[in-house]
Amino acid sequence: MAEPKSMNSEPMPLDMENRDPNNMNEHVRVLFEDAFGEPDGSHSIEGVWGMSFKTFNGVKNCCYIVLSVLCGCPMAFCWAMDFACVQCCHIWMVGPCVHMWKMNVSCLKMFWGSCVHCLCDPCFEACGLCFSLIRVQNKNG
Amino acid sequence: MAEPKSMNSEPMPLDMENRDPNNMNEHVRVLFEDAFGEPDGSHSIEGVWGMSFKTFNGVKNCCYIVLSVLCGCPMAFCWAMDFACVQCCHIWMVGPCVHMWKMNVSCLKMFWGSCVHCLCDPCFEACGLCFSLIRVQNKNG
Amino acid sequence: MAEPKSMNSEPMPLDMENRDPNNMNEHVRVLFEDAFGEPDGSHSIEGVWGMSFKTFNGVKNCCYIVLSVLCGCPMAFCWAMDFACVQCCHIWMVGPCVHMWKMNVSCLKMFWGSCVHCLCDPCFEACGLCFSLIRVQNKNG
Amino acid sequence: MAEPKSMNSEPMPLDMENRDPNNMNEHVRVLFEDAFGEPDGSHSIEGVWGMSFKTFNGVKNCCYIVLSVLCGCPMAFCWAMDFACVQCCHIWMVGPCVHMWKMNVSCLKMFWGSCVHCLCDPCFEACGLCFSLIRVQNKNG
Amino acid sequence: MAEPKSMNSEPMPLDMENRDPNNMNEHVRVLFEDAFGEPDGSHSIEGVWGMSFKTFNGVKNCCYIVLSVLCGCPMAFCWAMDFACVQCCHIWMVGPCVHMWKMNVSCLKMFWGSCVHCLCDPCFEACGLCFSLIRVQNKNG
Amino acid sequence: MAEPKSMNSEPMPLDMENRDPNNMNEHVRVLFEDAFGEPDGSHSIEGVWGMSFKTFNGVKNCCYIVLSVLCGCPMAFCWAMDFACVQCCHIWMVGPCVHMWKMNVSCLKMFWGSCVHCLCDPCFEACGLCFSLIRVQNKNG
Amino acid sequence: MAEPKSMNSEPMPLDMENRDPNNMNEHVRVLFEDAFGEPDGSHSIEGVWGMSFKTFNGVKNCCYIVLSVLCGCPMAFCWAMDFACVQCCHIWMVGPCVHMWKMNVSCLKMFWGSCVHCLCDPCFEACGLCFSLIRVQNKNG
Amino acid sequence: MAEPKSMNSEPMPLDMENRDPNNMNEHVRVLFEDAFGEPDGSHSIEGVWGMSFKTFNGVKNCCYIVLSVLCGCPMAFCWAMDFACVQCCHIWMVGPCVHMWKMNVSCLKMFWGSCVHCLCDPCFEACGLCFSLIRVQNKNG
Amino acid sequence: MAEPKSMNSEPMPLDMENRDPNNMNEHVRVLFEDAFGEPDGSHSIEGVWGMSFKTFNGVKNCCYIVLSVLCGCPMAFCWAMDFACVQCCHIWMVGPCVHMWKMNVSCLKMFWGSCVHCLCDPCFEACGLCFSLIRVQNKNG
Amino acid sequence: MAEPKSMNSEPMPLDMENRDPNNMNEHVRVLFEDAFGEPDGSHSIEGVWGMSFKTFNGVKNCCYIVLSVLCGCPMAFCWAMDFACVQCCHIWMVGPCVHMWKMNVSCLKMFWGSCVHCLCDPCFEACGLCFSLIRVQNKNG
Amino acid sequence: MAEPKSMNSEPMPLDMENRDPNNMNEHVRVLFEDAFGEPDGSHSIEGVWGMSFKTFNGVKNCCYIVLSVLCGCPMAFCWAMDFACVQCCHIWMVGPCVHMWKMNVSCLKMFWGSCVHCLCDPCFEACGLCFSLIRVQNKNG
Repeated sequence: MAEPKSMNSEPMPLDMENRDPNNMNEHVRVLFEDAFGEPDGSHSIEGVWGMSFKTFNGVKNCCYIVLSVLCGCPMAFCWAMDFACVQCCHIWMVGPCVHMWKMNVSCLKMFWGSCVHCLCDPCFEACGLCFSLIRVQNKNG
Repeated sequence: MAEPKSMNSEPMPLDMENRDPNNMNEHVRVLFEDAFGEPDGSHSIEGVWGMSFKTFNGVKNCCYIVLSVLCGCPMAFCWAMDFACVQCCHIWMVGPCVHMWKMNVSCLKMFWGSCVHCLCDPCFEACGLCFSLIRVQNKNG
Repeated sequence: MAEPKSMNSEPMPLDMENRDPNNMNEHVRVLFEDAFGEPDGSHSIEGVWGMSFKTFNGVKNCCYIVLSVLCGCPMAFCWAMDFACVQCCHIWMVGPCVHMWKMNVSCLKMFWGSCVHCLCDPCFEACGLCFSLIRVQNKNG
Repeated sequence: MAEPKSMNSEPMPLDMENRDPNNMNEHVRVLFEDAFGEPDGSHSIEGVWGMSFKTFNGVKNCCYIVLSVLCGCPMAFCWAMDFACVQCCHIWMVGPCVHMWKMNVSCLKMFWGSCVHCLCDPCFEACGLCFSLIRVQNKNG
Repeated sequence: MAEPKSMNSEPMPLDMENRDPNNMNEHVRVLFEDAFGEPDGSHSIEGVWGMSFKTFNGVKNCCYIVLSVLCGCPMAFCWAMDFACVQCCHIWMVGPCVHMWKMNVSCLKMFWGSCVHCLCDPCFEACGLCFSLIRVQNKNG
Repeated sequence: MAEPKSMNSEPMPLDMENRDPNNMNEHVRVLFEDAFGEPDGSHSIEGVWGMSFKTFNGVKNCCYIVLSVLCGCPMAFCWAMDFACVQCCHIWMVGPCVHMWKMNVSCLKMFWGSCVHCLCDPCFEACGLCFSLIRVQNKNG
Repeated sequence: MAEPKSMNSEPMPLDMENRDPNNMNEHVRVLFEDAFGEPDGSHSIEGVWGMSFKTFNGVKNCCYIVLSVLCGCPMAFCWAMDFACVQCCHIWMVGPCVHMWKMNVSCLKMFWGSCVHCLCDPCFEACGLCFSLIRVQNKNG
Repeated sequence: MAEPKSMNSEPMPLDMENRDPNNMNEHVRVLFEDAFGEPDGSHSIEGVWGMSFKTFNGVKNCCYIVLSVLCGCPMAFCWAMDFACVQCCHIWMVGPCVHMWKMNVSCLKMFWGSCVHCLCDPCFEACGLCFSLIRVQNKNG
Repeated sequence: MAEPKSMNSEPMPLDMENRDPNNMNEHVRVLFEDAFGEPDGSHSIEGVWGMSFKTFNGVKNCCYIVLSVLCGCPMAFCWAMDFACVQCCHIWMVGPCVHMWKMNVSCLKMFWGSCVHCLCDPCFEACGLCFSLIRVQNKNG
Repeated sequence: MAEPKSMNSEPMPLDMENRDPNNMNEHVRVLFEDAFGEPDGSHSIEGVWGMSFKTFNGVKNCCYIVLSVLCGCPMAFCWAMDFACVQCCHIWMVGPCVHMWKMNVSCLKMFWGSCVHCLCDPCFEACGLCFSLIRVQNKNG
Repeated sequence: MAEPKSMNSEPMPLDMENRDPNNMNEHVRVLFEDAFGEPDGSHSIEGVWGMSFKTFNGVKNCCYIVLSVLCGCPMAFCWAMDFACVQCCHIWMVGPCVHMWKMNVSCLKMFWGSCVHCLCDPCFEACGLCFSLIRVQNKNG
């Protein structure tokens, strides 16, 4: 995932052709042949099939463009605010908190682990004797 | 899945022969030999068999073409509207929402995971001692 | 499954010899030796055996041909109507509906999957420690 | 299973020696040595043994031939009627019905399968982590 | 199992020495050494042992021959009647009935099997993910 | 198991030395060293040991010979009668009865087996999908 | 186990040194070093140790010889009577009885076995389909 | 993890480009293409897409910088205090305490372990006899 | 375990150095370094350590010798009486009794074993069909 | 773990650079980049980031040094007292006590183990017969 | 474990340097770096660290020496008395008792084992038939 280094200083060179480099929304791709298909032996008239194709593409593009014009920039604005706040919170609060949590947990694990090993190790070592006398006699023929 | 690059700019060159490139509706293919078949030893008169074949194909094609003329374009129009709305919703709302959800969940996983590992690791490590004394004595003969 | 390309345009060249190319009704084949058989040591008189053979074949063929003449074409007509309607319904309604269903389900799977992985992964990783100390001591002799 | 091609046109060349080519009734073969046998050390007088052999074969053959003369051809006639009706029913009714059933079921399987995979896949993927840390230490000696 | 071809036409050449070619009654063989035996260190007087041997063989042979003379031929007659009737019933009734039963069952299996595969296949495919992440780290030493 | 061919005609050549050729009564062999033994460090006087040996052998042989003289021949007579009757019953009654039983059971098995396979096969085939995605990643080191 | 052939005729050559050739009473061997032992660092005075050794051996031998003189021959006499009766009973009664029992049981097993195989075989054959689709994908690295 | 040796004496050379060398907050990275993406066939107008991109980046950067200016240094101050106290507590109190705990636990383990081994070892050794008679007969064909 | 042959005639050559040739009382060995030990970093004054060593050895030896003088020979006398009686009982009573018990048990096993094999063998043979259709498809990659 | 031999006589050469040779307190290490990190695309102003770095290091070092000056030597004094007492107790009391405990336990194990082996060994040996008839028929293809 | 042969005659050459040859009290070793450690980035002033080191070693050594002088020899005296009594008890009482116990138990095992083998062997041999028909069909691809 090699992202351009100076992304935040000059973020302009946006790829206008491939608008989903991470294939994030691959599952919402809807071309005509993804939704409609006529198997062999059941073909409608060519005019009907071609007209359906044109209708589907035209209406879908038209409709989507209208909607994206209406809500594209506002949504981008709102999500930018949200992400900034959450990032700030994670970077200055949650990160150190996780570090301190791990310090205490790894200390607690020493006490608890030594108790468990003291109590359980002899029992399970004894259980292990079940498998200490496996004799297998193979005979090929 | 190599789709033609400029699909949405000039969507005309529609393949009129193979109308189901993704084999999406392969399971609804119904030729005469998919539905009818006479095993050896039980053959009807050739006239009856040939006539059934002609009847089946004629009626099925005729009937399907009438239905597709009636509902082909309207259905394409309706589905185009639906897909455009759903796509818009997924692209501008659900996508960023999924990203933010993952940010929080991966943070929560750190706290929860360290607790679980602290409590369970010693127990299961002790359990693992059961398998630490397996002696197998093979004898071929 | 290489079907002839222009099947629906000129459907005439019907194979009159092999009437079940897909072996669809192989299980209803009934020749005389499929139903009757005399083991060694229990053979009836040759006249009786030959007469039974002739009777069986004659009656079965005669009876089947009469029935097929009566119900062959009408059945083909009815099934053709049915298949045409069902195909139309699947092609213009069910196909796009399945596509939209999958779009939503794959989106839902992201949320649900990240929760499940967050909660269960540490537990099962810990369980996996049981198998991390397997010592096998083989002894051949 | 290479059956003679023109069986139903000239069905005469019936094999009078091997009357069970498919070994269908092999389990009802009853020769004298299949039912009676004297082990070493317990042999009856030769006259008794020979007479039993003759009695068994004579009575069995005689009795079977009488029965087959009486019921051979009538049974063949009845079964021929039955099989013709059942075949006709399977060929013109059940065959297309099975095809249509499969069309609908394979469609239903898409909806159901995507739900199941959405819900269960993350759980079982997490379960699979149990087996992701297997360390086996072999020691030969 | 190569039986003589013309068994039922000339059934005379009966093997008078080996009267159980299929070893059917091998388990009822009773020679003197099968029933009596004196281990080393506990041998009775030779006269007693020899006399017991003669008594056993004489009485057994005498008794068996009398019984076989009385019931040999009548039993053979009765069993021949029985087997002829049962064979006739199996050949002309049960054989075709089994064939028709299988025709219907294999048809029923198509409906039932497609339902079961539709419902259960996704579940068990998901279960199969448990085994999709097995990592084994072998260490020889 | 090659027994002499003409056993029942001239049964005289009885092996007087090895009286248990099938090792049937091997487990009732009782020599002095099978019942008595003095370990190292606890040896009685030689006279006592030798006298015990003589006493044991003498008494046992004497006693056994008396008993065998009394009950040898009568027991042989009784058992011979029994075995002759049982053999006759097995040879002329049970043998053909077993054969007829097997005829009917193998017929019944066809009906029952096709039902079971029709119902259970799809279920277990679906269950088998659990094991259809096993991925094992071996790492030697 | 090659025992001398004429054991019961001249049973005199008794081995006076090794009185337990079958190691039957190996577990009752009691030498001084089997019961007493002083580890390094805790040695008593040599006189005490030697005197204990002499006391133990003397008393044990003396005591055992007295007891064996008293009860050796009478015990041998009693056991000889017992063994002779039991042997006689096994040889003339139990042996033929076991043989007749096996004759009837192996006959009964034919009836029972064919029923069980008729009922259970199809079920378990169907169960076996679970293992008919195991796909293992190995990856070494 | 090779950290510069004299970190606490001259901590100035801070890497201003790569501000997360341990990839600790990798999961909170949010570029435009991480949150938004248009699949093929559903592209909005270039102006809308470019404007959304500019809006998102501008607002997010602006907002984050304001927040970091406000709470960066105060948070660093607080966390420094916390970490210093916790470190001091761990170094001078918890460390020796863990050492003393381990001393006592390893002592207790000796008593408990010898009891467990005394009681359970014979039982599981006996259980292990189940696997002491495995005979496998392979047949390749 | 090669013991001197004439042990009970001249039992004098007792090994005064190694008094536990069978390592029977190895677990009661107590030297000073088995009970006391000072780890590195915690060494007491040399005088104290040496004095403790001398005290321990002196007191232990002195005390043990006194006790062994008092109870050595009497204990040896008592145990010799006990062992002689027990040996006598085992040799003349228990040995033959075990032999007779095994005679009867091995006879009983014939009756019981044939019943069990008659009843259970067909069932488990049928169960074994579960494993008769294992198909494994390996794929290395 | 090669520690200098004469540690307790001249314990002065203390390593002032690497103050944790056993990596005992590795988990409480807190550098600035362990607690704070800004992912790509969310960088605050350089002044803020540098200032936070300086603040964190300065405050943490200052605070820790003050605390260590206050409680360093007193804590060392207390722990030294504790460890000395505990060591003395373990060396002169617990060590010999453990040794005596093991002496008695290993003695008890002999009695208990022989009972368990006497009772359970025959049962589990019989269970082991289940695996004594494994026949595997491999077929590669 | 090669101990000097004449340990109890001249026990003087005590190793004054390595006072724990069996590493018996390895777990109570407490050097300064076993209890205290400062990770990188949190180093106190050198004076404080050095002073803590000196304090810890001085106090611990001083305290331990005082305690060992007080209780060293008395403890050695008491333990010597205890060990001598326990050893004497084990050598003259428990050792022969264990031997006699084993004699009786191994005798009892014969009776019990033959009963168990008589009853259970046929059952488990029958169970073993489950694994007698394993057919594995491998397919590599």
